[in-house]
Amino acid sequence: MAGTKKAKVIFQPSGKSAHFPVGTPILDAARELGVNIESICGGRGKCGRCQISVATGHFAKFGVLSTQENISAQGPVEQRFRKVRGLGENRRLSCVSTIEGDLVVDVPAASIIAGQTIRKDGSTANMVRNPALKLCYVELTPPNLHTPVGDADRLKDIICHDFSLPDIHIPFDMLATIQKTLASANWCVTACLDLSPHTPELIAIFPGFSDRLLGIAFDIGSTTVAAHLVDLMSAQILASGGRANPQIRFGEDLMSRVSYVMMNDDGQEKLTAAIRQCVNELVDELLEKTNADRAHLLEAVFVANPVMQHLFLGLDPTPLGLAPFNPAISSSVRASAAELSLDLGRGARIYFLPIVAGHVGADAAAVMLFERPDKTDAPILIVDVGTNAEIMLWNGKKIFAASSPTGPALEGAEISCGQRAAPGAIERIRIDKTTLKPRYRVIGSPLWSDEPDFEKATKSNGVTGLCGSAIVEVIGEMLVAGIVSPDGIIRAPETESEKQRLVADGRTWTYVIKQNGPHLAITQNDIRAIQLAKSALYAGVKLLLDKAGLNSVEEVRLAGAFGSYIDPAYALLLGLVPDIAHTNLKGIGNAAGQGALKALLDINARREIETLVGKIEKIETALEPDFQKHFINAMGLPNSVDPFPQTRKNFDLPPLQVKVTSGAGKRRGGRRSKRQP
Amino acid sequence: MAGTKKAKVIFQPSGKSAHFPVGTPILDAARELGVNIESICGGRGKCGRCQISVATGHFAKFGVLSTQENISAQGPVEQRFRKVRGLGENRRLSCVSTIEGDLVVDVPAASIIAGQTIRKDGSTANMVRNPALKLCYVELTPPNLHTPVGDADRLKDIICHDFSLPDIHIPFDMLATIQKTLASANWCVTACLDLSPHTPELIAIFPGFSDRLLGIAFDIGSTTVAAHLVDLMSAQILASGGRANPQIRFGEDLMSRVSYVMMNDDGQEKLTAAIRQCVNELVDELLEKTNADRAHLLEAVFVANPVMQHLFLGLDPTPLGLAPFNPAISSSVRASAAELSLDLGRGARIYFLPIVAGHVGADAAAVMLFERPDKTDAPILIVDVGTNAEIMLWNGKKIFAASSPTGPALEGAEISCGQRAAPGAIERIRIDKTTLKPRYRVIGSPLWSDEPDFEKATKSNGVTGLCGSAIVEVIGEMLVAGIVSPDGIIRAPETESEKQRLVADGRTWTYVIKQNGPHLAITQNDIRAIQLAKSALYAGVKLLLDKAGLNSVEEVRLAGAFGSYIDPAYALLLGLVPDIAHTNLKGIGNAAGQGALKALLDINARREIETLVGKIEKIETALEPDFQKHFINAMGLPNSVDPFPQTRKNFDLPPLQVKVTSGAGKRRGGRRSKRQP
Repeated sequence: MAGTKKAKVIFQPSGKSAHFPVGTPILDAARELGVNIESICGGRGKCGRCQISVATGHFAKFGVLSTQENISAQGPVEQRFRKVRGLGENRRLSCVSTIEGDLVVDVPAASIIAGQTIRKDGSTANMVRNPALKLCYVELTPPNLHTPVGDADRLKDIICHDFSLPDIHIPFDMLATIQKTLASANWCVTACLDLSPHTPELIAIFPGFSDRLLGIAFDIGSTTVAAHLVDLMSAQILASGGRANPQIRFGEDLMSRVSYVMMNDDGQEKLTAAIRQCVNELVDELLEKTNADRAHLLEAVFVANPVMQHLFLGLDPTPLGLAPFNPAISSSVRASAAELSLDLGRGARIYFLPIVAGHVGADAAAVMLFERPDKTDAPILIVDVGTNAEIMLWNGKKIFAASSPTGPALEGAEISCGQRAAPGAIERIRIDKTTLKPRYRVIGSPLWSDEPDFEKATKSNGVTGLCGSAIVEVIGEMLVAGIVSPDGIIRAPETESEKQRLVADGRTWTYVIKQNGPHLAITQNDIRAIQLAKSALYAGVKLLLDKAGLNSVEEVRLAGAFGSYIDPAYALLLGLVPDIAHTNLKGIGNAAGQGALKALLDINARREIETLVGKIEKIETALEPDFQKHFINAMGLPNSVDPFPQTRKNFDLPPLQVKVTSGAGKRRGGRRSKRQP
Repeated sequence: MAGTKKAKVIFQPSGKSAHFPVGTPILDAARELGVNIESICGGRGKCGRCQISVATGHFAKFGVLSTQENISAQGPVEQRFRKVRGLGENRRLSCVSTIEGDLVVDVPAASIIAGQTIRKDGSTANMVRNPALKLCYVELTPPNLHTPVGDADRLKDIICHDFSLPDIHIPFDMLATIQKTLASANWCVTACLDLSPHTPELIAIFPGFSDRLLGIAFDIGSTTVAAHLVDLMSAQILASGGRANPQIRFGEDLMSRVSYVMMNDDGQEKLTAAIRQCVNELVDELLEKTNADRAHLLEAVFVANPVMQHLFLGLDPTPLGLAPFNPAISSSVRASAAELSLDLGRGARIYFLPIVAGHVGADAAAVMLFERPDKTDAPILIVDVGTNAEIMLWNGKKIFAASSPTGPALEGAEISCGQRAAPGAIERIRIDKTTLKPRYRVIGSPLWSDEPDFEKATKSNGVTGLCGSAIVEVIGEMLVAGIVSPDGIIRAPETESEKQRLVADGRTWTYVIKQNGPHLAITQNDIRAIQLAKSALYAGVKLLLDKAGLNSVEEVRLAGAFGSYIDPAYALLLGLVPDIAHTNLKGIGNAAGQGALKALLDINARREIETLVGKIEKIETALEPDFQKHFINAMGLPNSVDPFPQTRKNFDLPPLQVKVTSGAGKRRGGRRSKRQP
């Protein structure tokens, strides 16, 4: 085929170049140079994944004149593809186009495996698409009397040949499917390989040509399970969804679920079945929503805390409830979806990210994978607040990680008027310093409660409770308004009008937010619960700072739903995190879910986090005597500064830098006072 | 540990030697030299597999003086082992004994992996014991707060460390078992690894120390299923057993079973379930017989013809019933026993030998593995006679293989008085040339029918039919006695007394063997059936001889039950195999079963046959025009020579060389004659 005459070819944007014999297919030249142009059909002009275009002109820096005459004319395969499936102007199929002279070849990002996605929208922006699964279209020679080689053997041989693989493994349970599919599809099939094992494994087979490959990323929280259905060929999120974790009926927090397992013989089985069923329901929902074919959904990636990971994998979580908090497995888990009774496509595989320690889960690992704090020089603190707060600290040399038992108070649980974030929940709240009257906004409406149409706008859901962000805000506001002291005591009313708001409750006082509909109030116990949560979080952070030899950090990132919705000003006000410039504290959203997506899209990201997790220094808070000390020291609420002195109407955060000191440092000097100047 | 002083150590019988620092454990020294001393316990002095002894004296050829002072004195570990489990005089544990001076170390065969078995008895004589499974006893550090690494991870780490493995794979379904076993066994367990995959795989785990490992080898025939239960640590056969293949109720021969599958929607399912149940029953039987624990039975090896292989593996056999006889898989199959619903130990694996072609099975591959005809210079023909005859020919350069559709006549099926070999079946028969009266012997009694106590001895089973060997003999005897012509025609009676034996049956004649009890006779159709079988076999052999460029072979080996029981003299008389010296035709017994045993005991034997099968030239008889020609030419029965001219009383074969010509060559010149001179 290839003549002896050679031509220079430069691939852009990599700039890789070499001389190739005239007549060489461009795809072959690219492969020889390690330019990973994708191809499903093994160079048969069927899949259209290997598109390139020729950059024409005289390129002085390469010393070549690149023209359309230097690439072969369109042949029948390319013409048919252009007619049937369409091909952009100037686009060519690199598998059937040959080098006829010097060329500068532009490789679009979509044609490259392991290229960054070009999506600027949505959650997969800038993620690398290099999936663990690979589609291979092959055309077998029909069986004949002269080569009595089995279907599976011939399939293996042609995949290895067409896709330059030294070997593939065909699992036993694929044999019957291969036999049926090959015969019914006239010996032309698309195989799906899992590239993760040492020897790539055949996991699915489709009749004829197929270029559809779906994956799904799950973030299994104690309270909420979230999923993204992704097109693995384009890195596009097709649909997202979430559900309450049905295990809640066995226990609101993780430890009560572990207790349920300890106390009931079939407890583990029930909890495992519940969460797997929830995952299956989400799969069904997203497939229906997108009208996608389950058969093409061949991989799922999971992150969760260690207890959820154990329950989901069918392992006993009880060792995680007692020192030494010993997990059954801490490294990543690869399994078939069928082994976990998951209804994905037949042959689908699952990948569970590694957990960091018995109390620091795969969700924390996913946060680190997505954030990679270790890629910067400055010290960074990342906190993922849930029922346990997972705390990660990068000191420029090493990542430290710990989990702190904040309890669910910061998420609204165990608070008398608390609730999960849902329509009807108060999410923002302000207290008038004079009248002590609150104003608030609820999820589902942009209006504040003192705005004209508020009643009408909130009629359908009502005002049902306070979610985590509002709980943090109301306590901060109570502190600023002098209703609660830095010791955490709600004061008695001092005027007649205050008696509307400050109501006796046995020997303590309660702040009333709303009297009708559901009665919403902050009790002394609520304040105590938040104080405990806040101290636990702060003590964990302080412990890591000590271990890392730091006094402060340059940046604090709050992950998780709580971290996304909490107002940084109030987080600082309550001393949830160390003192820091207000602008350097940011919510980073569901970084765990983003990490799961990253691992779904890119096989190398899995190797990355597996390696990284091994290098993390795990701090077991329960082991550290200093933790108790820090915990007790952090119980107080800081002497507070009003974060919004100018106007309490304005919801948008002012860009000014708010200096707040942590409770730990200030409590000792704090006296009970109604208000700070 | 090891000092700087060095001593010379020679390991016998290999003769491998080197200098090692004084203080080096002998096991370590052996490993460094590639002397494969076995150890289950990772050198903890627990398993006793690593025994060696010191050869004392002055060894001039090595230039060393080896004394008992040059090995370390027995320490507490060794003393305890000697006391608790016993240790032969002079035997030492090489893991805890160190080199203190020059040594000649004798390594007993039982201590070597991949050493030839020392068993001289039974079927595993001279086979290599190098199983695919490996036991590893390990002691984990208990979990602690400072190293929050999962159970499975710590198990993996210590196995890799103690047994010098770069990596092992822990399948998902082992995780829960590992968690339970480790905790209950105080962190000391014995793991079983499957060494066949690229990364060894953990397949089972036992609490505490265990050195019990069982395997089972199956030869699944169309008619009979045979099994050997084997101690993989000693290569000893613990028990053997056999059963009728229950698929017989769906069809006596393979093609009728394939038809059953074609005609019935659930046919394949039923046939698969039947054979797997039979295998499970045999497993139960052998475990009960030996009182062995199923948990330790962790591997099964299978051989069968392609149709049985497909049905056993749950694959559709119908493509094997039609040209081009395309198998679903021809290479070897590795699977978990559970995937095939086999009740072995939890985690057990199965290995199915490769098949050679759509008509030449894993049983033929096993025959070749056991016989390895290609390791000699002389041309050798191996024939495994069953419903199809599998024919293998080595011409000194290459192995040729074919299958020939002999049908079941040679095994007694489709013959009016034929039956399977079972008590009551006639196995030997002689005809008096004068009276035409037969004498016979039945299975289960050593007496001939004309001996005094015959009636009494055969009373319980009666005389029920003729098995394959007797059918061959009776036709040979009829030929020698002139009852049947070389054309295959049974003649009319010529005297009054002959009318007792030669009876009209429509327009043809029948030879009566026995009138009462069941009426046993050879009909003209029976002769035709044997002629067809014999021509098919002979034509297949002739075809291979043509392909191999041979006119004759030096040796013929008859495998299988038929081959073992058939009298070579009669095989030659009927022209079943090419002309050969009588002493060079031998029955080799169940070589397929032996091949299965060999593959069970030695992982390298699997690689051996996988490679060998790829090099075999497969001849598809149905494709070859010459096959039909040879077939028609071989229809006649040879002009016969009485193989026992001296005495027809004598059952033992005379050692003289019987020259018989094949039917193929002689038929053209043959004329109908009563008797040859």
